Amino acid sequence: MTRKKIGFLGPPGTFTEEALISAVEADKSKLVPLTSIQEVIAAVERLEVDKGIVPIENSIEGSVNATLDMLAFEANLLIEREVVTPVVNNLIGRRGTKRDRVTTVISHPQATAQCRNYIAREFPGANIEAANSTAEAVKIVAGRQGGEAVAIGTSLAAKLYGLNVLERKIQDFPDNRTRFVIIGREMPKRTGYDKTSIVCFIHEDRPGSLLQILQEFAYRSINLTKIQSRPTRKTLGEYCFFLDMEGHVEDANVAEALKCLRCKIRQVKLLGSYPRARVGKA
Amino acid sequence: MTRKKIGFLGPPGTFTEEALISAVEADKSKLVPLTSIQEVIAAVERLEVDKGIVPIENSIEGSVNATLDMLAFEANLLIEREVVTPVVNNLIGRRGTKRDRVTTVISHPQATAQCRNYIAREFPGANIEAANSTAEAVKIVAGRQGGEAVAIGTSLAAKLYGLNVLERKIQDFPDNRTRFVIIGREMPKRTGYDKTSIVCFIHEDRPGSLLQILQEFAYRSINLTKIQSRPTRKTLGEYCFFLDMEGHVEDANVAEALKCLRCKIRQVKLLGSYPRARVGKA
Repeated sequence: MTRKKIGFLGPPGTFTEEALISAVEADKSKLVPLTSIQEVIAAVERLEVDKGIVPIENSIEGSVNATLDMLAFEANLLIEREVVTPVVNNLIGRRGTKRDRVTTVISHPQATAQCRNYIAREFPGANIEAANSTAEAVKIVAGRQGGEAVAIGTSLAAKLYGLNVLERKIQDFPDNRTRFVIIGREMPKRTGYDKTSIVCFIHEDRPGSLLQILQEFAYRSINLTKIQSRPTRKTLGEYCFFLDMEGHVEDANVAEALKCLRCKIRQVKLLGSYPRARVGKA
Repeated sequence: MTRKKIGFLGPPGTFTEEALISAVEADKSKLVPLTSIQEVIAAVERLEVDKGIVPIENSIEGSVNATLDMLAFEANLLIEREVVTPVVNNLIGRRGTKRDRVTTVISHPQATAQCRNYIAREFPGANIEAANSTAEAVKIVAGRQGGEAVAIGTSLAAKLYGLNVLERKIQDFPDNRTRFVIIGREMPKRTGYDKTSIVCFIHEDRPGSLLQILQEFAYRSINLTKIQSRPTRKTLGEYCFFLDMEGHVEDANVAEALKCLRCKIRQVKLLGSYPRARVGKA
């Protein structure tokens, strides 16, 4: 049996790989690190990988527009699954690192920002050094001779580079979660606990056009879990709306709502029906 | 006359400072660099600065949830103005830098990512080094002896650290804009070309609750320019909706819509009425 190739936003040891490993059977898959969200989705389109995993939303940073735009405007692929994982920032270093001798804290600026209060409290006066990813930060600490440096990153990266998790979950805001989506060409069967994502294109930014869309769902008691407007960037004044709803396109009410929407508005693009994630605590 | 203090997301020489300088009369203001969005908004609340400027949305990266959350849940302040500026990534180095001898490209990972194709084409094989901000990248290049390093950052930072812009606007996606908001306590007068931002809190994630809200606007022909749902993170299942609309709370139709909304739903928080930005081209 050939193993399925799954592209992810690399390098190895990042939060994306951690999410991916939590979601797939690693021994049945070959994980392929790629360098950008655009490349992950393009690689799936070009059949270079079977599926791809990309972040679509973070509870602190917000929606990942690069992903939304690729799915809406560039790719013809389906969301096959969502994976919601807590982002756990760990303090990583050599075993036996003395805290009072730490001179340098290394991480991706976003991770550093999410641990700002912790760093100020635990390592006042330390030099904050940037890395291109949390995984690179761990690699730098593993390779550096002399001086005491620590990194902020995943436990996966600690294992990968032979270092230790000195303290778990050091971020200032405990509730930090990222929603990833697995992108491919398959439509999973209805499970009864599903979500459907669509994007609606509206010709003009007319008052009431969104209202017309939402009426179709309200009328059928379909619960919307997310709504976001976004300019299409193709034509000035053209808007699109990303909608997530409870239910599967095989559910009669969802199917009917989409059918009626397609009569009303210019374009409705189905981004997928897939099982809803059971959200764990961070 | 004492100059107004305006807090911004530092360090000096970043895109935020560039946007701020484009928007205020620099000689009448004292610009105060702060280290996070939360701190900028908190400093305005504590009257340590008169106003603050923070990013609220980027055309590629998406909404800045840290800003939305502070405005919705933490602060009682008003958006006094919006500033939409093109994000221009420049190649920065010493005058006379030989391109074929460049060994290292330094920037904030987000800027590096936005120039990935350019770097691969112009500097194949160069070492990509991370910095905590684009301004820090320029500072590192200015301070480094030996070897040829270049940074990606603002022309402001180039000036600040005595370096030259070697090439302007090197980003892969030309249409990269950030919308900043100036936060304070004042409500600007109606200009006739205004925008109003509100956040509505919905008790339950009921089908149709958003519909009820939107009906108030559609009925009065008020054009919504942005809509975004977001969990409140306080109570599970409690949602809020960020809405931007054309018009000012002093406009009769907007005032009436807000009045009717307040009868219908639990909480409507006014985030401000302010002149709409005239959006320039990048």
